Amino acid sequence: MPSEFDVIRTYFSRPTPQAVLGPGDDCALLVPSAGCELAITTDMLVEGQHFLPDTDPRQLGWKALAVNLSDLAAMGAKPRWALLAGSLPEARAQWLAAFSEGVFACASRYGVDLVGGDTTRGPLNLCFTVLGEVPAGEALRRDRAVRGDDLWISGWPGLAAMGLAHLQGRTRLAETLAKRCLAALQQPRPRVELGLELRVRRLANAAIDVSDGVLADLGHILERSAVAAEIHAAQLPSRPAGVDPLFARQCQLAGGDDYELVFSAAPAKRLELAALAAELDLPLWRFGEVVDAVGDRRLTLLDEDGQELAIDGQGFDHFA
Amino acid sequence: MPSEFDVIRTYFSRPTPQAVLGPGDDCALLVPSAGCELAITTDMLVEGQHFLPDTDPRQLGWKALAVNLSDLAAMGAKPRWALLAGSLPEARAQWLAAFSEGVFACASRYGVDLVGGDTTRGPLNLCFTVLGEVPAGEALRRDRAVRGDDLWISGWPGLAAMGLAHLQGRTRLAETLAKRCLAALQQPRPRVELGLELRVRRLANAAIDVSDGVLADLGHILERSAVAAEIHAAQLPSRPAGVDPLFARQCQLAGGDDYELVFSAAPAKRLELAALAAELDLPLWRFGEVVDAVGDRRLTLLDEDGQELAIDGQGFDHFA
Repeated sequence: MPSEFDVIRTYFSRPTPQAVLGPGDDCALLVPSAGCELAITTDMLVEGQHFLPDTDPRQLGWKALAVNLSDLAAMGAKPRWALLAGSLPEARAQWLAAFSEGVFACASRYGVDLVGGDTTRGPLNLCFTVLGEVPAGEALRRDRAVRGDDLWISGWPGLAAMGLAHLQGRTRLAETLAKRCLAALQQPRPRVELGLELRVRRLANAAIDVSDGVLADLGHILERSAVAAEIHAAQLPSRPAGVDPLFARQCQLAGGDDYELVFSAAPAKRLELAALAAELDLPLWRFGEVVDAVGDRRLTLLDEDGQELAIDGQGFDHFA
Repeated sequence: MPSEFDVIRTYFSRPTPQAVLGPGDDCALLVPSAGCELAITTDMLVEGQHFLPDTDPRQLGWKALAVNLSDLAAMGAKPRWALLAGSLPEARAQWLAAFSEGVFACASRYGVDLVGGDTTRGPLNLCFTVLGEVPAGEALRRDRAVRGDDLWISGWPGLAAMGLAHLQGRTRLAETLAKRCLAALQQPRPRVELGLELRVRRLANAAIDVSDGVLADLGHILERSAVAAEIHAAQLPSRPAGVDPLFARQCQLAGGDDYELVFSAAPAKRLELAALAAELDLPLWRFGEVVDAVGDRRLTLLDEDGQELAIDGQGFDHFA
């Protein structure tokens, strides 16, 4: 069996032009850009909790990095560096080759250098830490939504949850749709370009990425900004043909793993946002507005006719 | 049971004066100091692999952070920030309170802000990422040892391995010694001040911290610097009274978990190093010298009489 050092050398050592010193010393050495703040986040993926035991290792490698880059996207930060700590039950060459291929495919797509990490034996657990940069004071934060802001979401929320339900046999999707939903689940595209443009063009006031479900994640913006929201379910993308409407809505509002961005923006930015959506070839849906908080109530969900809908399944909580 | 967000709020949220933005957003935001490089490292501790299942949670919290700070020490970097990703089988209040107490005891001892992280359910796994700073170009690296350098080691290598053997019933230490060895194992003191002073006073050429054993970790310096070394076992600290000499030597040379620093320094620095040892109240042992590499052979180990000793058990390798 290969040693820990062989594993790193063989599978995880690629040139790191963005680092002063990459893997192989006690620490990596990086030179942050002058005038920038460093945005940093870490996410741990556990087998059986965040992914199924038979997940394709290439897709797993992509996704483990992608979900971290999604957090950078939500701050409007430019991704630069990543570290990977992983515990593996065994060091199988085929698995490692495919997994690292997925990692580096994602890293090179988003311009990230893998500068360090740690490998050990144990139950399968993958922990990326990623670093990005943002000009000082310009990061998109959760606590900056203000009354009157529109609420927006990118892309196709709900597909990942539908894909998971399909994989688990809880629903049966038509072939083309299944393919699309599984791609959303297994190879999410973090909205890095969208986050950057929202920040550079000063279009958004607050932003978050959707990992736990639209309602749950929007809830974090509302809580940190001390505001409330009215959401119009009918303004979200229409459900795919042939899917049960209630199931589709549940996936859209409460499904996790989408890695779309939810953000708030002044109504004056609507035209510019439409232009940005066209430029990025990425739909942006205006699905609600920020209102004053009354008591503890943060979310009001309205249907096509302006009738209030009950909210349940607000998201995903690892210990609840 | 408390939710993931409650766990973070209750146990892991303390003021982060060194951060622009601490826990609670998609990323933490940090302002690196001008003219500095960022030193970053990550280490994953797995139950049953790096610590025993019944380890005291307060000591575990201290150690999980300390072993990462030791990597910063080995670069001569000043510790500043940390992130913690952890998977836990359950969220027990008592365990979490003690664990987080240990984390913050270590963080405050070494001047580190816990600025972010992730909590999830799964087999017990603790992954810290730590960041420090070092003036550009001044980090202590592994690849800068040169022929003629003295080899030094700090403190008391071998105590942690003796403590582990005692805990596991492989040896039986006298009470006072056992206490000292268990403290070394369970609450290691990363040599942060030593690393900083070696760098500031330009005393060391190359450095590494001892996590896998003196011979194994020295081996990394030798390999990366393309040199070899002669080691004089008799120049290491003498074995504690009452301990089998062979066992003591084995622990000293091949025992892991010590978190002492091994470094190379020009012979002209001996006096200054002696002064530094006195200042820090930390012994520094000159235990060998750097020589030219001949072929693949990197290490020659000599006993009291200059006779060569066989080398085995060069360290700890998670997949070998």
